[in-house]
Amino acid sequence: MSETLIAPHPLDHAVRLEPVEPGLYRGATTPEYWNMAGPFGGATAAIMLKAVLDHPERRGRPVAQTVNFCAAVAEGPFDVAVRLVRDGRSTQHWQVELSQGGKIATTSSAVTGAERETWTHTPGAPPQVPPAEQTPVLDTTGRNGWRARYEFRYVRGAPMPGGGSAEAPASAVSQTWIRDEPRRPLDYVSLAAISDSIVVKILQVRGDVPPVATVSLSTYFLADEAALARQGSRPVMGVSDARVFRHGFNDQSAELWSDDGQLLAVSNQVVWFKG
Amino acid sequence: MSETLIAPHPLDHAVRLEPVEPGLYRGATTPEYWNMAGPFGGATAAIMLKAVLDHPERRGRPVAQTVNFCAAVAEGPFDVAVRLVRDGRSTQHWQVELSQGGKIATTSSAVTGAERETWTHTPGAPPQVPPAEQTPVLDTTGRNGWRARYEFRYVRGAPMPGGGSAEAPASAVSQTWIRDEPRRPLDYVSLAAISDSIVVKILQVRGDVPPVATVSLSTYFLADEAALARQGSRPVMGVSDARVFRHGFNDQSAELWSDDGQLLAVSNQVVWFKG
Repeated sequence: MSETLIAPHPLDHAVRLEPVEPGLYRGATTPEYWNMAGPFGGATAAIMLKAVLDHPERRGRPVAQTVNFCAAVAEGPFDVAVRLVRDGRSTQHWQVELSQGGKIATTSSAVTGAERETWTHTPGAPPQVPPAEQTPVLDTTGRNGWRARYEFRYVRGAPMPGGGSAEAPASAVSQTWIRDEPRRPLDYVSLAAISDSIVVKILQVRGDVPPVATVSLSTYFLADEAALARQGSRPVMGVSDARVFRHGFNDQSAELWSDDGQLLAVSNQVVWFKG
Repeated sequence: MSETLIAPHPLDHAVRLEPVEPGLYRGATTPEYWNMAGPFGGATAAIMLKAVLDHPERRGRPVAQTVNFCAAVAEGPFDVAVRLVRDGRSTQHWQVELSQGGKIATTSSAVTGAERETWTHTPGAPPQVPPAEQTPVLDTTGRNGWRARYEFRYVRGAPMPGGGSAEAPASAVSQTWIRDEPRRPLDYVSLAAISDSIVVKILQVRGDVPPVATVSLSTYFLADEAALARQGSRPVMGVSDARVFRHGFNDQSAELWSDDGQLLAVSNQVVWFKG
């Protein structure tokens, strides 16, 4: 067996949490998901979800997660405290705090729920796009660490310096195939990270890179474990848009579709930007 | 001066919080916003936001709020605890818990931020709809308490028993003018409540009323105080949709537009349903 095969995936390395005491874990940032001034927010979201999934009282699968990025996470170790806020018959409500040196850097709420079959109705339609294998791979040579952790194949709206400008903004719509690099079978942890992987819209529409940071991210997981298992390590389709940039904040929406047209998750974030 | 004019608006009555000690308030449910098995979620969202706005260390205006409805709020008094999680230069992060008898019923995170002028870009477009005064008022006679606290004028997608069925679902899209009843000048507190006022989608698409409850609600406030003041007590336009109902949960999105075409807030929720 080669070492490549037995080494953990960089995402599993990034979300590894050592139990300290019940409800308290210790982790550390990893260079593989480093962004400009801290770890990639999606990796942090994945850590916050992993802490819930690792909790011995957790039942069911993730339904919703909100992550609040309160301050930059510094390079190095961090503590993650998890609390079961309310344990209901159909849902469990969780609260998670990531702290460094006693100061909270990230908070998250999460809801887990039992898997069950109900009435199904899917008014949302997947985009009509060419398959991933017919879509060119975005060149991420020289980008920050985390950008190399995903393979993006943009059908529409690839962020390109000079693609738009403040005076003539490009469209905020994007459609991109996304998968972990290296490949990794999809699960809720990686889906939480992928929910934040579509680059912040101001880069796409304005073509420059002002100081920018996601403030709050909410993801709803609308697929069961079986749907994620069916998807495996093939690329998911991320459709994303923004509606308003004003007073230093903008919205950003994302839909994540399986390659057979099932909506796996919807995600929304509000982003702070300067200037 | 008549008593009608000096009495507080029912919403101001519902969100009234008595300070108990720093960061701790006491409130009580009010019959005016009662729903089937607890208060209207929007009223609870408004209470959670009001607690942040009342905090002496709060600077700036609301930017984002996530409310997690962990359990039904019972009729009667409740405690609201507010904590400033992280006080940053451009944003403050808050955590709020509503509890009754020592058990948490609702949690909320909120982000506040300083008002500032930046680059503005508005790719999102308001819907082309007739003005409120040309749109008939939805008859809410005999509905639960909170329904009478809003005037709805549906352009499209009014929830009607028999309007759709499980076998032939109606469209999930809705467009409705919404205002407080009685009229009340718009502010962030009422906008938080209005964000949850569009009826859960399963009623609209399936035409029946199964057991249903919002699990988590996230609202981004994209307008400044001046924009809310300009809107005054005139109706806002709520555009709403849902993409998938599966495994007992569905998403629900909302855009809230001023009547002069500015996007005031976007809101998303995940809803639990039975059967």
